[in-house]
Amino acid sequence: MSKYLAITGGVGGAKLALGLSHILGPSELAFLVNTGDDFEHLGLHVSPDIDTLMYTLSGLSNPETGWGRAGESWHFIESLRELGGETWFKLGDRDLAVHVRRTTLLEEGRRLTDVTAALFRAVGIEHQALPMSDAPVRTMINTDAGQLAFQHYFVRERCEPVVRGFAYDGADSAQAVPEFDAWMADADLAGVIICPSNPFLSIDPIFAIAGIKQTLLDCKAPVVAVSPIVDGVAIKGPTAKIMAELDVPTDAAAIAAHYGPLLDGFIIDEADRALETAIRAAGLDVVATQSVMRTLDDKIDLAHTALELLQVC
Amino acid sequence: MSKYLAITGGVGGAKLALGLSHILGPSELAFLVNTGDDFEHLGLHVSPDIDTLMYTLSGLSNPETGWGRAGESWHFIESLRELGGETWFKLGDRDLAVHVRRTTLLEEGRRLTDVTAALFRAVGIEHQALPMSDAPVRTMINTDAGQLAFQHYFVRERCEPVVRGFAYDGADSAQAVPEFDAWMADADLAGVIICPSNPFLSIDPIFAIAGIKQTLLDCKAPVVAVSPIVDGVAIKGPTAKIMAELDVPTDAAAIAAHYGPLLDGFIIDEADRALETAIRAAGLDVVATQSVMRTLDDKIDLAHTALELLQVC
Repeated sequence: MSKYLAITGGVGGAKLALGLSHILGPSELAFLVNTGDDFEHLGLHVSPDIDTLMYTLSGLSNPETGWGRAGESWHFIESLRELGGETWFKLGDRDLAVHVRRTTLLEEGRRLTDVTAALFRAVGIEHQALPMSDAPVRTMINTDAGQLAFQHYFVRERCEPVVRGFAYDGADSAQAVPEFDAWMADADLAGVIICPSNPFLSIDPIFAIAGIKQTLLDCKAPVVAVSPIVDGVAIKGPTAKIMAELDVPTDAAAIAAHYGPLLDGFIIDEADRALETAIRAAGLDVVATQSVMRTLDDKIDLAHTALELLQVC
Repeated sequence: MSKYLAITGGVGGAKLALGLSHILGPSELAFLVNTGDDFEHLGLHVSPDIDTLMYTLSGLSNPETGWGRAGESWHFIESLRELGGETWFKLGDRDLAVHVRRTTLLEEGRRLTDVTAALFRAVGIEHQALPMSDAPVRTMINTDAGQLAFQHYFVRERCEPVVRGFAYDGADSAQAVPEFDAWMADADLAGVIICPSNPFLSIDPIFAIAGIKQTLLDCKAPVVAVSPIVDGVAIKGPTAKIMAELDVPTDAAAIAAHYGPLLDGFIIDEADRALETAIRAAGLDVVATQSVMRTLDDKIDLAHTALELLQVC
């Protein structure tokens, strides 16, 4: 039986994760999830990317907003606003229960990995989702308005400040979770897929943990990534804006170059077919395909393409 | 200008408090509120009696349930149940915001008195509500099923265990808040009203703070109480059940005897007129009146009766 690891951040990555979960069973597929966006808010431990993956895989997600839960209500946050509380981070009434439950379990001394497993089981997900670490790593954004914590940049400031660089506080001392090490050491490991999440904000925090990056560099199974940039723009979020601010060309080839020696293969959109030769010249196997995932079929199709690419890398 | 203090627990007491607030302005009336029911739940500081008073005075209360907020929704607790969380204490979506806001402000190092003032102002209440102490006092119920924390007895066990006695943990070292001392020391203080709350569960925790009890014993202004027992039964809650379990006669005279030397006057229901002579014989001024508060007019009428009794004591 072949095993795969999918590395993902939030919304974009979770779409491909959903496609993969329709093809591969719980013993064939595990997820490694960014926790650099995690933060303490109103006394609660919020793990946005873990929750986005959980809501997406369980069918609880809100397809209209792209975040949060379907059928959500907002009475808590309305009431908190009346009381003068902090309301820039929108916590839905149902979503809030996840943060409260996570916080309770963490305060009981459990690892984030075990807490995540309990939450995923509770909503009926059988696949393992592994936080990149049980230790806190916090993505900090260096901007022209000073250093901002991730959620302050992303939500409160709506990605408006100009980005100069990043820091991943805590990454130096954080370690991968043992479940990741075990999954990667499995002789049946057949490939790693880096989902189309923001490289700077969602994937680099994971690679900032030295043990994870080294394990991927050393891993005998091939590693492929899906470009989050299509035809020069990001499907969602500030990826292209950040690349421009960092003076990086805003295209899929720059994403491939960014991941560099980690990659064996790369998936670009058919709109970017002109970049195929240049990326191949860097030593990667490349597939150009329809990579914009609107429907469930799109997600499953792209997942098949990624698995096929892993076969030939 | 005459000033009054009303001492209250939850639902029953809050009704008379509302009546008083329609007669007396914020500089004439302050409330001293039981916090023996306070507890930490899901990482939040919950103050049930303070909240009941706040919801009652602000018009946010739910007249059907007698607790919580009108127009409440329950999506948080439904979602928490799905996640395997503790759901025996029903937290509504809007109500939850109060507990989160209180917890945030307390964790910033503010006193419960100041936090309560901020919450009351936020919902438009101008009267001062003073917690009995800024220090934690926790009402414990000794039962035939062992000692239970208040909410475990009251909510989780639905007052079913047989009561043997009470303990007020922390009361020995707790002190009244300075705002209470100042209000009581005011030369304009014209009277104290003990609202018709449960004497054991709502009022005794307040008197368990030695400084408060002594201040009331020493106070020159008269103290009157309204019986929570009418015609041998409690209007609401387990008062009569507890009295029976403690082998105390289940009547208004036993309530007057329970408060003993604290009282100068006592209000009983007209249904209990037969007890009037016996209570008078104990040295109290007594008024028998329609004391069951169904409408706002009932509450204001009873408040007038209490203020009139204070004039003659």
